[in-house]
Amino acid sequence: MAAELDKSLKILIVGLGLIGGSYAEALSKKGYEVGGIARREETIALALEKGFIAHGRTTPDAAYLGQFDLVIFGLYPDRLLSWLEEYQAFLKPGALLTDVTGVKKSVVYPVQEMLRKDCEFIGAHPMAGREVCGLENADARIFSGANYIVTPTAANTEQAIGTCEALGQTLGFARISRLSPEAHDEMIGFLSQLTHVIAVTLMTCRPVEHLTAYTGDSFRDLTRIARINDAMWAELFLKNKEELLRQMDAFETQFQAFREMLQSNDEEGMRAVMRQSTAQRKLFEK
Amino acid sequence: MAAELDKSLKILIVGLGLIGGSYAEALSKKGYEVGGIARREETIALALEKGFIAHGRTTPDAAYLGQFDLVIFGLYPDRLLSWLEEYQAFLKPGALLTDVTGVKKSVVYPVQEMLRKDCEFIGAHPMAGREVCGLENADARIFSGANYIVTPTAANTEQAIGTCEALGQTLGFARISRLSPEAHDEMIGFLSQLTHVIAVTLMTCRPVEHLTAYTGDSFRDLTRIARINDAMWAELFLKNKEELLRQMDAFETQFQAFREMLQSNDEEGMRAVMRQSTAQRKLFEK
Repeated sequence: MAAELDKSLKILIVGLGLIGGSYAEALSKKGYEVGGIARREETIALALEKGFIAHGRTTPDAAYLGQFDLVIFGLYPDRLLSWLEEYQAFLKPGALLTDVTGVKKSVVYPVQEMLRKDCEFIGAHPMAGREVCGLENADARIFSGANYIVTPTAANTEQAIGTCEALGQTLGFARISRLSPEAHDEMIGFLSQLTHVIAVTLMTCRPVEHLTAYTGDSFRDLTRIARINDAMWAELFLKNKEELLRQMDAFETQFQAFREMLQSNDEEGMRAVMRQSTAQRKLFEK
Repeated sequence: MAAELDKSLKILIVGLGLIGGSYAEALSKKGYEVGGIARREETIALALEKGFIAHGRTTPDAAYLGQFDLVIFGLYPDRLLSWLEEYQAFLKPGALLTDVTGVKKSVVYPVQEMLRKDCEFIGAHPMAGREVCGLENADARIFSGANYIVTPTAANTEQAIGTCEALGQTLGFARISRLSPEAHDEMIGFLSQLTHVIAVTLMTCRPVEHLTAYTGDSFRDLTRIARINDAMWAELFLKNKEELLRQMDAFETQFQAFREMLQSNDEEGMRAVMRQSTAQRKLFEK
């Protein structure tokens, strides 16, 4: 188990949304000095009022940015890249940078490529979220019981990996693990992105309004995540496009195979798939 | 709201599994005289011990069957038809028969066709269940909050419909409604059968064993029903085959449309589907 972060680190969080805000809350409560960057004055004011940050800015400048040892990006992937292009000159030499985005290959490699060579970027994915967004819904408790995944590349130092794992530990994640960006994106393409595509598809494939009175738990469970932040998920899907297409094709192939069995009255074939399904689902019981 | 059942009715439950057993418990607790038929002596003994039935038989005979005004079949569809062929001669003249199966067209019309003309069969679907089966898991509380659907045809009398609705009321269902067998099967093909096919497909479309440590709520929610009673569901799928194939095709068409959008980087197209999904999902909030 990793140790917690060095208490003397000054930490900056860029982007105070649901996840960035929850990071800020968790780290401030643990006694770290946390600064924040947000686009709107009201967001900074709210974060100060809640005690999530000690100070903040809407417009980064060299004097402010230059004081932070650890910079955490709570931004959408595209915004992260453009922010760095604009402001990386102001970062403290030797600063460690990390992120929270749900796709890694398309973020980690471009950022490592374009970043100043006296700073280091290491990708991480806190697998926590809610169906709501924004600082007003931030809550450090969402990390408890959740997974924190560090996605180092050959460009990362052992020290940076250790610091990133310590960050996950400090935030209160239940499990901290390492995956390559490739293994991460394969896993997330299946467990998270494909499931969202399925839920959205089920919710929109036919008229449903007249069925609300008959809905049981099965349909509610399968469509809970059909309430979806369209801007964020469309970007995440496109940033992991090849992997998500592969996962969709795997699902599609099996769906068609089952359809064939039903069509041809292959009762034993369907039952064999269901028995396999039942056995595999048991592996996922909490 | 329907009244409860006449207290003087003598009720027989044929098949003391999860649903039949739960019916027996609910009706006995309300003070009705409930008899039971089960294949195994141990089932009858357990039902007597639990106080779910007043008396029971493993082999129906004329003297026993001839005393019941209301006969409820807690059997799989195929077994229901063969049971009636064998024993309908013993039924009390004027007896009302009903069932609990999750598909209706393929049960209601054949049963009404083959039944003695001095008895009446009316289909019903208690939309309650659990991931476990058998009398040992029976529990009358599963009906609370659930839907009870009566599926009358032109062959049914208003009196029988009223009695069947009163049965749902007496069992403690939250909502009692009427649908034609056709409308019922269309609804259940989508809300229940398609969702089970999707969950089973997701659980079996690729290797998953190495992913258990990373699984979040989305995947768990979408695969909860992937633990499935293969004998029962394969029979239900085949008994509603044409409807389920139509529902699978509607899903498939929308899934492919989404895949096309992703493939062609149609971000706005994906976002429009997600916004529709979000709006429609709100209709299903409890």
